[in-house]
Amino acid sequence: MGPEATLDLYRHIINLTPASRDQDHFRVLIYSNPKIPDRTLAIADGGESPLEALTESARLLESAGASLIAMPCNSAHHYLEQLRAAVNIPILDMVAETCGALRGRYPEVKTAGLLASDGTVQSKIYHRALNAKGINVLLPNESDQAFIQSVIAEVKAGKHTEAGREKLLAAGTRLIQAGAQAIILGCTELPLAFDSRAFSFPSLNSTLILAEAAISAVGQKIQENTD
Amino acid sequence: MGPEATLDLYRHIINLTPASRDQDHFRVLIYSNPKIPDRTLAIADGGESPLEALTESARLLESAGASLIAMPCNSAHHYLEQLRAAVNIPILDMVAETCGALRGRYPEVKTAGLLASDGTVQSKIYHRALNAKGINVLLPNESDQAFIQSVIAEVKAGKHTEAGREKLLAAGTRLIQAGAQAIILGCTELPLAFDSRAFSFPSLNSTLILAEAAISAVGQKIQENTD
Repeated sequence: MGPEATLDLYRHIINLTPASRDQDHFRVLIYSNPKIPDRTLAIADGGESPLEALTESARLLESAGASLIAMPCNSAHHYLEQLRAAVNIPILDMVAETCGALRGRYPEVKTAGLLASDGTVQSKIYHRALNAKGINVLLPNESDQAFIQSVIAEVKAGKHTEAGREKLLAAGTRLIQAGAQAIILGCTELPLAFDSRAFSFPSLNSTLILAEAAISAVGQKIQENTD
Repeated sequence: MGPEATLDLYRHIINLTPASRDQDHFRVLIYSNPKIPDRTLAIADGGESPLEALTESARLLESAGASLIAMPCNSAHHYLEQLRAAVNIPILDMVAETCGALRGRYPEVKTAGLLASDGTVQSKIYHRALNAKGINVLLPNESDQAFIQSVIAEVKAGKHTEAGREKLLAAGTRLIQAGAQAIILGCTELPLAFDSRAFSFPSLNSTLILAEAAISAVGQKIQENTD
């Protein structure tokens, strides 16, 4: 998927792992396959489906010995059930983990604002996961959504502009003013464009939550193998 | 090897790749295997050899479809010939690439200072590669070398101290004062502890040079397949 997002996920995994030397870290196998067809083009514009390439990538990781898969792309989770059916190892659900973290950390939230790609928005994967928890979704207005999509493309092109930072914060703030009580960063490129800790209201970074879920799941596997 | 060094190499590869969208990037398979026994302990202190784990890791990458290996650990290059014999795909030589870059960029240099781990220093891999090009090697004094080794351990423990930065610059400067005309950062943890561009004299970052060599080699492979 996005190479920078992949790098960001691994950075979080390293930082969150308690380690005083190399050998304290987990073995991690990363298949950074940026050739997977664009998810937003497929979902929102009828472009080539990424499912075949996603399946091949998941199978490659399984064949190489991975015992668990984390997929740092929210829109690719549109294909999660089909992917899970194609391999024999668990694949974490970044969308479910993010919505679970929202419910766990901010139990009072009834409405969440979603900053995500056009593909993720149109796939309604966050809508379904949030509605199931009794949480409503607020989306940015049309011009903010178009801006968010352009920022995602900029990050994928290796351009991290400071100019976009203020506008992303403004888009999030408008969602709060419209009634959202928390903001979900539901695209792994967005935390690379701005630091969501600059929000003065609750926000959830899906990449960071996926890293936490991966470490927790690997820890459980190690525990099971030790028992 | 060092997960942070692995991350740093991939960051350089992404930054150096001309790309305006995900699909312009190369497929990269990363096996971050921090369980490989410590190279400096093996070379300098008679500890467990990392060769078996290095070989298994290289074979895993080959089996998973890699067509070229870059190994972001200088001291592991002590085992390069044995590793190359164990797989059927090329493994880049980070030490040779770094010494080649030194000769190419600074043809006047007759003496180079080496900042590296105890393992790399004692293996003499840089001495051999540099002497073959008519370049002498200057090593830090005993107390500077001990400090460098401690900084490497700190980076591996996830501690990037600003305090170490000045002392590393001072160690490099002492090598220049002793007659070195350029400084080699011959350990992939060192660029994580300080920015060698702060040196006011020529320096070579072996991680960055390995990234350049990897991109060049992959580009040549693509060219060959197109011809």
